[in-house]
Amino acid sequence: MIDIAVVGATGAVGGAILSMLAVSDLPLGRVYALASAASYGETALLGGKALAVGSLADFDFGRVAIAIFATPAAVSAEFAPLAVEAGAIVVDCSTQFRRDDEVPLVVSGVNSDVIATFRARGIVAVPGVAAAVLAVVVKPLHDEVGVKQINVATYQGVSSAGKPGVNALAGQAADMLSGKSATPTVFPRPMAFNLIPQVGQSGEGDHTDEEIGLVDDMRRLFTDPQLDVNATCV
Amino acid sequence: MIDIAVVGATGAVGGAILSMLAVSDLPLGRVYALASAASYGETALLGGKALAVGSLADFDFGRVAIAIFATPAAVSAEFAPLAVEAGAIVVDCSTQFRRDDEVPLVVSGVNSDVIATFRARGIVAVPGVAAAVLAVVVKPLHDEVGVKQINVATYQGVSSAGKPGVNALAGQAADMLSGKSATPTVFPRPMAFNLIPQVGQSGEGDHTDEEIGLVDDMRRLFTDPQLDVNATCV
Repeated sequence: MIDIAVVGATGAVGGAILSMLAVSDLPLGRVYALASAASYGETALLGGKALAVGSLADFDFGRVAIAIFATPAAVSAEFAPLAVEAGAIVVDCSTQFRRDDEVPLVVSGVNSDVIATFRARGIVAVPGVAAAVLAVVVKPLHDEVGVKQINVATYQGVSSAGKPGVNALAGQAADMLSGKSATPTVFPRPMAFNLIPQVGQSGEGDHTDEEIGLVDDMRRLFTDPQLDVNATCV
Repeated sequence: MIDIAVVGATGAVGGAILSMLAVSDLPLGRVYALASAASYGETALLGGKALAVGSLADFDFGRVAIAIFATPAAVSAEFAPLAVEAGAIVVDCSTQFRRDDEVPLVVSGVNSDVIATFRARGIVAVPGVAAAVLAVVVKPLHDEVGVKQINVATYQGVSSAGKPGVNALAGQAADMLSGKSATPTVFPRPMAFNLIPQVGQSGEGDHTDEEIGLVDDMRRLFTDPQLDVNATCV
């Protein structure tokens, strides 16, 4: 039996992780739903089962074999090392460890073999959403012919900003359908009935940090620093 | 003074053309708003002025110098030659004449010089919306360095299907915000809070007819049959 902690359990990603754990074939032991102080007293759902949300700051990670962090990078930076120190293996969904050469960046079925190197730091990182999906598609093509160049346009949802992002879109759409104008919240531009060809902040050169992250993730996943990826993230 | 007929005046594109005529510097004479039988009795707006919508089938195109067709290709095919025969110059917004070597395909400021060849057929064609916008951006780059390859992703609105397309989106969005599911109408898929990476029908090879049309339009506009355009229309 494997005891697992899901950190950021009240967020959109944490909730999805709990849903997937509930239907997985893993021999689950206890599952702990953890979050920051703002969410104490809430409940999270593990399939049909309600879990009381516990305090991340007070949790003893010695109780679990695996801690899955669905948290902002700053939270992962602070608490993932403490979880490792207490004896847990950390799977981190944030950007915090994606560029750390001692932390394997893994997509199941694409480069599963590198997960064996997790012991150096006790942490496994996962790539951004666009790279995770793209890598699965590129993998069989790469195995067959060796992909050299990828031109990709991504369409990323407001859920990238979690529940506040989804709520902002719904509110703006309702306003516009009522003949009112949409007030931008969460995102710098109105999102209802709109597409923004800029995800994240402007980065180096002509690309945003999201696009640069996608390129870097793909190069790490395919162990090819020369892989030519031209990304437009919308 | 130039007398002008706008055919398809009750549609989304026809309405936009009338709005632009109202604020243009053209020495406008009479403006006739024409449409098919379904729209008789409606009015169209030329700026603040209401125009009674007349019958396309009964109109004498000898009364105007220019007839602008914002109509489906089949309507342009039937009536544009009649308008020319009656003495009008036709500007057609449909796909009907875009591949006709005797009809100039023109974007103002990009290849304005070819408009002089309109006398062969009496018709001027305009490209699809995506090519019209893209050509304006590519033109100065092409003049400066000679563009050889274009990778482009387009994001095209439901208004490509006119007012019924816009109404379908609004209805589906309202349903989804009320917790109902969206029933696809006008388009084969639900459009609310959605992006469909297929505009038009599947065409030759891996591209849709919309993507193939964009490539063909760009090659005609830049008089370069070898221009390498890789288009994804969403």
